[in-house]
Amino acid sequence: MNQKIYFNGEIVPREEALVDIEDRGYQFADGVYEVIAVYQGKPFKLMEHLERLAFSAAELEISCPGINQLQHETESYLASLNQTEEDISIYIQLTRGACPRTHAYPDDLDPVLIMKAGSLELRPDEYYQNGVKIITRPDERWSKCYIKSIALLPNVMAKKAAKRARAYEAVMHRDGFVTEGSSSNLFLVEGDSLLTPPASNYILNGITRQTVIQEIGPKLSLEVREQSISLDRLFRAEEVFLTGTTTEIMPVVRIDEREVGQGRVGELTGRILTAYRELTRA
Amino acid sequence: MNQKIYFNGEIVPREEALVDIEDRGYQFADGVYEVIAVYQGKPFKLMEHLERLAFSAAELEISCPGINQLQHETESYLASLNQTEEDISIYIQLTRGACPRTHAYPDDLDPVLIMKAGSLELRPDEYYQNGVKIITRPDERWSKCYIKSIALLPNVMAKKAAKRARAYEAVMHRDGFVTEGSSSNLFLVEGDSLLTPPASNYILNGITRQTVIQEIGPKLSLEVREQSISLDRLFRAEEVFLTGTTTEIMPVVRIDEREVGQGRVGELTGRILTAYRELTRA
Repeated sequence: MNQKIYFNGEIVPREEALVDIEDRGYQFADGVYEVIAVYQGKPFKLMEHLERLAFSAAELEISCPGINQLQHETESYLASLNQTEEDISIYIQLTRGACPRTHAYPDDLDPVLIMKAGSLELRPDEYYQNGVKIITRPDERWSKCYIKSIALLPNVMAKKAAKRARAYEAVMHRDGFVTEGSSSNLFLVEGDSLLTPPASNYILNGITRQTVIQEIGPKLSLEVREQSISLDRLFRAEEVFLTGTTTEIMPVVRIDEREVGQGRVGELTGRILTAYRELTRA
Repeated sequence: MNQKIYFNGEIVPREEALVDIEDRGYQFADGVYEVIAVYQGKPFKLMEHLERLAFSAAELEISCPGINQLQHETESYLASLNQTEEDISIYIQLTRGACPRTHAYPDDLDPVLIMKAGSLELRPDEYYQNGVKIITRPDERWSKCYIKSIALLPNVMAKKAAKRARAYEAVMHRDGFVTEGSSSNLFLVEGDSLLTPPASNYILNGITRQTVIQEIGPKLSLEVREQSISLDRLFRAEEVFLTGTTTEIMPVVRIDEREVGQGRVGELTGRILTAYRELTRA
């Protein structure tokens, strides 16, 4: 994998991609990010990701290049990698910039924009064939999860708890209702309908989530309802799956110690995964 | 101010204090920190700060040097600065280390320990003489505020809101009860008693807070009660003050648009500030 890094308008070797210790991303988690999948050289939903990056930045009053410039920078970086065979991912991070440490940020900082390509690291085939286990866990995060910020410590701890339980993901809940996974959204199947929690301040409105709601659901003639989902309802679901840029459409066959449905990958989940693969590899 | 930086066991010039873009502190807020005041060369409550750093790290399973080594490193760094006239502060940050980006952390990372000295930047004298204004604001933070992590984005946004309202601090509340300021704890005076919210998971148990409870209160024969404080009760308080390493003991004379008591620095608050100054400058 090519190890060139985009760093504030320049392409630098990996080992030169260093940031100041007073970059506010390092001292205050004062930044936002995106992860974009690139299938055979084509970034999937590039504009949606860049628009969300700009939106997250705006919510935090972080100065962000315009969408056209972001697009240009990303596409130039991608072109410089010359990777059209292997599927890759692009990690984009925008922090507020560096200044002497103080909570209340100055308004005139120069933001730091970084992009790093990596292999896409899709999950193993058997995860998609056999389904995965998830655990449930109280949602410990702040109340502005709709911003894709780098203040990810609660997500880190949740994901680690999942790994320790030999599970794929930790799905979180507040006040008895499901929010989302530590790095994924959640859907369940009831009859011919898909259900997913509404895009409130308590969830990150994933691009893959939106793709299922707006494109795949209609294409497969499935009704998609955004609705609060109690833990009990989750446990009774016929099928459950997770969505995310690198998770794609991940079938869930076990939640904590309970089987989902028959404990096998659900039929609708399989059709949605197939549709997603067709869409991304078109 | 001397601009030497402690960086993982070495003293480096300021401009060489750079971290990798995949340091997990930068991508996940996966780290902890302390700020220590150094009065005329003497760090105040050094061991308490270092023990809390180790505690925060342990809560997050971040590998941390032993207390004795931390003490040795801090004292050596301090000695290298040769600053015994000016009061300074030491910022200490420990992150989990660098690895290819993934939420669930590997267990074998080499942590990154940084220390940076700065001027103590105490608040202007008139703040202490006249008191300050604070605003109140819903607490948006996660549920593990007792860990002194660098996931400070909600605190950043709260402090910025305060500055914008020309206030010193934003004091936060959950479910109608006061938690703390964005970088300080809160006390109020009722008769001869001091009240402060209990050290739950929703507050950071400040060293200055503990000093008031354990040393200054008893010294001045004041009863100190750790008790949940409703917003209404805060608004009715006779005196209010904030505590913190650089805030020291800060009198509050206005909360949102309301005056506290007579709108002047309270008598007990003044005595506590005097006692704190004696303690730190002993």
